Amino acid sequence: MKQYKYVLQERDMPTHWYNILADMQNPPPFYRHPATLALMEDPPMPPPVFPMELIQQEFSQERWIEIPDEVADVLKLWRPAPLFRAHRWEQALDTPARIYYKWEGVSPAGSHKPNTAVAQCYYAKREGLEGLATETGAGQWGSALSFAGNLFGLKVKVFMVAISFQQKPYRRVMMETWGGEVVPSPSTETHAGRAILEQDPESSGSLGIAISEALEYAMTHDGYKYSLGSVVNFVLLHQTVIGLESMKQMEMAGDYPDILIGCAGGGSNSAGLIFPFMRDKLTGAKPDLRAIFVESTACPSMTRGKYAYDWGDTAKTGPVAMMHTVGHSFMPAPVHAGGLRYHGMAPSICALIDQGYAEARAYHQVEIMDAAHSFARAEGTIVAPETAHAVRATMEEALACKESGESKVILFNASGHGHFDLAAYDAHHREELVDYCLEEERLQKAMAELPRIP
Amino acid sequence: MKQYKYVLQERDMPTHWYNILADMQNPPPFYRHPATLALMEDPPMPPPVFPMELIQQEFSQERWIEIPDEVADVLKLWRPAPLFRAHRWEQALDTPARIYYKWEGVSPAGSHKPNTAVAQCYYAKREGLEGLATETGAGQWGSALSFAGNLFGLKVKVFMVAISFQQKPYRRVMMETWGGEVVPSPSTETHAGRAILEQDPESSGSLGIAISEALEYAMTHDGYKYSLGSVVNFVLLHQTVIGLESMKQMEMAGDYPDILIGCAGGGSNSAGLIFPFMRDKLTGAKPDLRAIFVESTACPSMTRGKYAYDWGDTAKTGPVAMMHTVGHSFMPAPVHAGGLRYHGMAPSICALIDQGYAEARAYHQVEIMDAAHSFARAEGTIVAPETAHAVRATMEEALACKESGESKVILFNASGHGHFDLAAYDAHHREELVDYCLEEERLQKAMAELPRIP
Repeated sequence: MKQYKYVLQERDMPTHWYNILADMQNPPPFYRHPATLALMEDPPMPPPVFPMELIQQEFSQERWIEIPDEVADVLKLWRPAPLFRAHRWEQALDTPARIYYKWEGVSPAGSHKPNTAVAQCYYAKREGLEGLATETGAGQWGSALSFAGNLFGLKVKVFMVAISFQQKPYRRVMMETWGGEVVPSPSTETHAGRAILEQDPESSGSLGIAISEALEYAMTHDGYKYSLGSVVNFVLLHQTVIGLESMKQMEMAGDYPDILIGCAGGGSNSAGLIFPFMRDKLTGAKPDLRAIFVESTACPSMTRGKYAYDWGDTAKTGPVAMMHTVGHSFMPAPVHAGGLRYHGMAPSICALIDQGYAEARAYHQVEIMDAAHSFARAEGTIVAPETAHAVRATMEEALACKESGESKVILFNASGHGHFDLAAYDAHHREELVDYCLEEERLQKAMAELPRIP
Repeated sequence: MKQYKYVLQERDMPTHWYNILADMQNPPPFYRHPATLALMEDPPMPPPVFPMELIQQEFSQERWIEIPDEVADVLKLWRPAPLFRAHRWEQALDTPARIYYKWEGVSPAGSHKPNTAVAQCYYAKREGLEGLATETGAGQWGSALSFAGNLFGLKVKVFMVAISFQQKPYRRVMMETWGGEVVPSPSTETHAGRAILEQDPESSGSLGIAISEALEYAMTHDGYKYSLGSVVNFVLLHQTVIGLESMKQMEMAGDYPDILIGCAGGGSNSAGLIFPFMRDKLTGAKPDLRAIFVESTACPSMTRGKYAYDWGDTAKTGPVAMMHTVGHSFMPAPVHAGGLRYHGMAPSICALIDQGYAEARAYHQVEIMDAAHSFARAEGTIVAPETAHAVRATMEEALACKESGESKVILFNASGHGHFDLAAYDAHHREELVDYCLEEERLQKAMAELPRIP
């Protein structure tokens, strides 16, 4: 009998997060100060917008960081997450490849995002905070933080990119069900939001703007700090439970991946899956391991951006990081994969790509939805448009195996379900989906605004 | 460390379905012919609207019926389903009760419904059929059959109650993603639908009408048969995987339920959980076991209806069954729990209630959504409004334990997630939910149309 699922018990959950910085010979360069652009060699970075424990994790050189019992205790509401062998999809694609996927859609919020939201809320509560402010694109991150904040008795303020706020009312309701307070961004509640609205009252918003608003809100409200759902080291650290569980599950399956694949907006879900395996490549144990980070052609930081210092947010309030970027003022086209509309990328991922340890590629939204349909028809699972980018890359690698006759092992991260994204599926059925074409000129204009490092 | 989940491996899946009829001293009386009202003592019932194998299962007296490998092979895409201990909800309710729930929301369609859809499609395909026609209320059943039909290469035609078709476009898109063809009911595609539309062009539809349409479609299209998602014996049979898995999981937890709870529209999810345990009561091993079937006050067949013969559908095409009914012409109020708007109830459940083996109760929609919120805040999980009825009953039993100081073990079936029902949560936040009051006079009028048995 075929086995479809590799299921762990709670006692098999990882006890520590894995910090890839400890194994990188050339870790990403230090952050720079948002105003002076000076190197920030030591924590805490001013202003201390995050809980102190998280700032320490951001700069930690420890390879293993213990997961507090209180955090593990919440993660157990859905973790360990199952890992599947996609037998039926392999058959549909007629490929000799062995395809596995880690399924993070089983969390209450529907994606991998609660893995870090729970940890962040725990540390915020322990520090005595009253609440956290954050931004959300498609709503996955805002849902995750609302869910986690509620369990730790924290208030959660969410600035939701306006276009998603309008298109995805159910995501708002979900956040409100868990007690989150949600406003469309740009909003009138911050200077940053009002400044944008003055220029363009109809602004559909962006993640960069929403980050600026959340940062400002946190800094101007007593008892509040800021929470970020991707990009920075400590977030990626918390997501490594994905890969650590997957390593055990691949062992149960008697396989080891040749190719690892994840979609990347800020990079946290793909890093979560890939980093624990990447250790085997960094240490030389698996020199041929391939890792593919997949982005949207609408916001192609890794494939068409520069590897340079840039601000993390539009208002230039947050730290300046060395990363692949299309420019902090870049306004991406309104693709359905709202979570992939961030102008930058996690610095640790960018360093790996820059140093040749990992690959990047980008897809248009019609081809990713083709792949999502192929997957849904074979496996049943309806993935989010973000996840569909990983599905597309997996499909192409599997079809390459069919061509070459190789039976490679491919593992991708199915980061979230698409229950709130069925408008994308509907548009695809009706052949109304648009492949946005990003002109080089527009891209260069945004990148001309990168900081000039002294 | 507290344990939250009891997780089985694929090898622990039940190999046989449990047929409760084999253990009932007084099984439900035979069906009657829809036109002559004569007793139908032998299969097949004319006309043979279902695949023959299912008709044989409907009348089988075998206690255990083997699950075909091809069916198990699809169920493994999500089964075994996890069983949870609701530690956090117990704490929130401050109850000494030990609350467990079986989580059926992990299926691709989001509920328990695929458990029977997969079996029905397998038998239909083996019989050489081209397609199946069915009805759906809130969309859970239509999604399940579309999902399963696609995997077995069957066409699926879904008549969706018009009000849900309008209110839940995402459910339609989900069905279409799996290749289902969906039309709002009443439709112009059948005599039954056209007759209703002539009387009321704005008809919001009902499950009874949609059943009539699907039956007619199946009988007038070559290669098609009809598929039903609840009520009849073979559907409840297929759902017993829920209870059979739960028995093993409760054993892992070292507990045995004092009280079993499920919501009931046609009764399949609650029967699926309860019947395997009920065997212990029927055989005398657990005489004190309580089983509670929970319905909506908007459609109170068990709590305010008659235990009498009635047609299963509005057009009086299907068999006449002995059941609790509010009358085949009854039009329930448009509560959010669309799946609980069926006028009858599974005959086997009704017999158990009539003979004192089980209890029934009904709730209004404000109180069930209060309970759903309490549960979502504590456990994270956002359940469907149907499921919220079971959550409410569990909450009341848990609070009764708090009152009495008893530490009872309560197990309820969390039959589906509420990702497509967030409008109900939104209405609840805004205090816009309405408790429909059902006048006795209106009820009596519908029940005056019950058949007069010769």
